[in-house]
Amino acid sequence: MSGTDGEFGGCATGLHCKECGHRTGLIAAYVCEYCFGPLEVEYDRERLAATVTRERIAQGPLNLWRYRDLLPCAPHDPTLGLSAGLTPLVRAPRLAQRLGLRNVWVKNETANPTHSFKDRVVSVALQAAQCLGYSTVACASTGNLAHAVAAHASALGLESYVFVPSNLEAQKIVATAVFDTTLLAVAGTYDDVNRLCGELAADRPWAFVNVNVRPYYSEGSKTLAYEVAEQLGWTLPDRCIVPIASGSLYTKIHRGYQDLLELGLCDGAVPTLDGAQASGCGPVATAWEHGRDFVSPVHPDTIAKSLAIGNPADGVFALETARTTGGSITAVTDDEIVDGIRLLAETTGIFTETAGGVTTAVMRKLADRGEIDPEERVVLYITGDGLKTLDAVSPHVAAIQIDADVASFEAATDAASALPTLATTIA
Amino acid sequence: MSGTDGEFGGCATGLHCKECGHRTGLIAAYVCEYCFGPLEVEYDRERLAATVTRERIAQGPLNLWRYRDLLPCAPHDPTLGLSAGLTPLVRAPRLAQRLGLRNVWVKNETANPTHSFKDRVVSVALQAAQCLGYSTVACASTGNLAHAVAAHASALGLESYVFVPSNLEAQKIVATAVFDTTLLAVAGTYDDVNRLCGELAADRPWAFVNVNVRPYYSEGSKTLAYEVAEQLGWTLPDRCIVPIASGSLYTKIHRGYQDLLELGLCDGAVPTLDGAQASGCGPVATAWEHGRDFVSPVHPDTIAKSLAIGNPADGVFALETARTTGGSITAVTDDEIVDGIRLLAETTGIFTETAGGVTTAVMRKLADRGEIDPEERVVLYITGDGLKTLDAVSPHVAAIQIDADVASFEAATDAASALPTLATTIA
Repeated sequence: MSGTDGEFGGCATGLHCKECGHRTGLIAAYVCEYCFGPLEVEYDRERLAATVTRERIAQGPLNLWRYRDLLPCAPHDPTLGLSAGLTPLVRAPRLAQRLGLRNVWVKNETANPTHSFKDRVVSVALQAAQCLGYSTVACASTGNLAHAVAAHASALGLESYVFVPSNLEAQKIVATAVFDTTLLAVAGTYDDVNRLCGELAADRPWAFVNVNVRPYYSEGSKTLAYEVAEQLGWTLPDRCIVPIASGSLYTKIHRGYQDLLELGLCDGAVPTLDGAQASGCGPVATAWEHGRDFVSPVHPDTIAKSLAIGNPADGVFALETARTTGGSITAVTDDEIVDGIRLLAETTGIFTETAGGVTTAVMRKLADRGEIDPEERVVLYITGDGLKTLDAVSPHVAAIQIDADVASFEAATDAASALPTLATTIA
Repeated sequence: MSGTDGEFGGCATGLHCKECGHRTGLIAAYVCEYCFGPLEVEYDRERLAATVTRERIAQGPLNLWRYRDLLPCAPHDPTLGLSAGLTPLVRAPRLAQRLGLRNVWVKNETANPTHSFKDRVVSVALQAAQCLGYSTVACASTGNLAHAVAAHASALGLESYVFVPSNLEAQKIVATAVFDTTLLAVAGTYDDVNRLCGELAADRPWAFVNVNVRPYYSEGSKTLAYEVAEQLGWTLPDRCIVPIASGSLYTKIHRGYQDLLELGLCDGAVPTLDGAQASGCGPVATAWEHGRDFVSPVHPDTIAKSLAIGNPADGVFALETARTTGGSITAVTDDEIVDGIRLLAETTGIFTETAGGVTTAVMRKLADRGEIDPEERVVLYITGDGLKTLDAVSPHVAAIQIDADVASFEAATDAASALPTLATTIA
C-alpha cells in the first residue's frame, strides 16, 4: 500500500524530511528513509500564491474545507461526512478583565462534531487515507482522537480500529465505543499504545492516522491559524496560547500563520506563540526552562490525560517555534488546571476539558507575571470539552439540595450565603 | 418589574393570547390575564415583509442572530456572549440507506456551545430579560436548559439560579455547577420543579427563562426552521422529525416554516412535522393515538429525561401542529431509544443523547411502516449530546482489553470475531 502515489489532486506535491530535506512522493510514510527524520507535506507555493485569495476562501463551505487549497487533499463533496471547523472565535471581555487584559478571544473547539480539535486532523487524515487507497483507518489515542476517528469513520463508512490506554476516562471510552468501530483498551501508557500501533502499522494495510498517515493528518491543525485570522477580519493576533502534547498542533499553528503572511493573505508578523503543558507531563516545558534544544522523555502523571505524551514526537520543533516567535513554554500544576477550567467557565460560559484548563492557567500565569501587554490581542486555544473530563472538576462543584417548596429554597440559600463552603458554586 | 415596556427595538410589537387573542405590550408575563391562555410574541408583519430578505440574512453573523429581525430582540453586539446556532445540517446517506430512504439530513444541535438546542432559546431569553430590565435569570430544567442558562449567564455576567430535579444525570449536574451559578437540586419531578419556579417567579425580580420570559424564550426555536431552509438553499424539506417535551420546540418549528412562506423567503408547503416522544413519558403521543384534543398528564418513567415533562404546556398546540401539517406523534420504548442512539452513531458519526435516540427511533418506525416515501427530503432534528446521557448506553458498549503487544491484539480480535458478544461494538 505505501509507496503508491494517490489521487490527491491539490497543490501538494510530495513529502520532505524536516531534518535532511530528502523528498518523496505523496505516500503513506512518516519517517525519512535516509535519516529517520519526520516527514512533512510540501506544496507548489507558486500555484498556491496564484490560487488562494480571501474571496475564494469566503466562497467555500462553512467548515475547514474552505481552506482546501492549503491542505494536502479534499473530499470530492465537502458536504459529505462530519463537518469540522469554522468553530466560533468568542470575545471574552470578562476573562480579559479578570486577568488585567483588554483584548482576549477564545477559539472554541468544543463546537466541533466530537468536541475537540481532533475533528480537523481526522477529517484531513481520512481523506488522505482514501486517496492512498485505504479502506481501514486506525489510531493511537489519549481519548479525543479515538472519539474523532470512530465518529468520522462511521460517517464515511470506513472500518476502524482505535487504540487507547486502558486507564482512560470512562466518558471517553463510552463516547468512542458507541460508534461502528473496534475499540482496544491497552494496558499501558499512551507511549506504549503508540509503540504497539507503530508495530501494527508495519505489516497491515491500515491507515493509522497519527502514524503512517501523520504528515497529512497534522496538516489539519493549520486551519486553526487560518480561521482565527479570517475571523479577525484577515488580521493576525499578537499572541496565542496553545497546548502542547506531541507538539504537532503548536508547530502547525505556527506554520499556518507563516502561510498567511507568505501568501499575502495577512500583513504583519507571526504572533507570539506560547506553549502550555501540565507539570505532571511537561517534558517540553522542562527543556525550555533549562534552555535545552532536546527533550527528555518523562512518565506522565497528570489529570490532563489528553496532553499526557511523555515522549513528544515534535518536541524539538516546539522549542524552535517558541524561540522563533518570541514565545515561551510553561507548565502548570493539576490544581492550577482545575482553577483554569473554572475561571474559563465562570467568565466565558465555555466548559473545557483539562487541556483547556492548562492553556487558561498558563495564560493567567503569564498575565500575572506581566509578560502580556494589556493591549495585546490574545487568542486562547480551547481544544477540548469539559464533558469528557468530568472527574477533574466533580470533586470541586456541587448542587444545593432542597425540597420542592419556597421555604426550603429560602432556608438553603440563606444557609449557603452564610456558609459559602456549602455552595461551592457561588462566586 | 413585569408590566414595563422594555427597549426591544425590533419588529416585535407585543404579546397576544393564543386562546382569546387579548393583546398586551412586551412585558414579562406568560399567561393571559383574562383567560390564563399562553402568550405569544407578535410582530409587525408588514414591516417584517419589507425588511427581511435572503441577502440581509446572508450578511448577518454566523449564528442565530442572522435571523434577528424575526426574533423579539437582539444584542447590540451579536459577537458578544456565546455564539449559538448555525449548526451543521449533515447529509446522512448511510442512515438513509439503512432505512430504505434516499434523502436524509441531520440537524446537528450538539454543535451548539452547551451542545443542545437550548442555547438558542436561552440566547433569546437572556437578551429579552435584559431588555425587560432584569439582571438575574433563572430556570426550571431537566438538564440541558440548566447547562445553557448557567453558561450564557456566566458569559454575559448575569446572576443566575438554576433548578433541576435531584435525580438528574450526574454529568448534567457537574456540567452546570462548574459555571458561575447557584444550582438547586430539587427533590421531585420536573413538574414539581416547574411549580416551585412558578411560585418563586411571582414575587422575585428574576427572569425565569421558561416561566415569566417564556414567550420570548420559545421564539428562539423558530431559528431551527429558518436555518434548515437556508442550508437547503432556501428550499423546504418534505418532512421533519422533532422531539416533544413541552411541545414548544415542535410548535415553534412549525411557526418558523410558516414565517418563511408568509414572507416569501421560500416557496412550497410547510413540511410534514412528525413529533417524537418516549413511551415512558408520552402524554401527547397517547392523546394523538386516541384522537383526543386534550392531553392527560402522566408521571414520567423513561431514560429520555430531557423529554420527561408529564404535563406539557404546549401539548394541545402540538396536537394541532401534527394535524395541520399531515404529521403524527409517535412514542418509542427505552430499548428503541438506545437502538436509535446507536443507529445514529454508527451511520452518521453523531453521538446523541436520549432525546435524539427518540427522534431517530421514531424515524425508523415511520420508515419501517412505509409512512415515509423513499424520495422525500427528511430532516431529523438531533437536539442534544450523548456525552450528557452516557449511562443510557454504557451498559451496551465496551472496549476490548489487551496487553501492549501484537500477540495480545491478535488473540483478542480473533476471539472477538469468533464471539461477537465479547465486542459489542463490532457491527
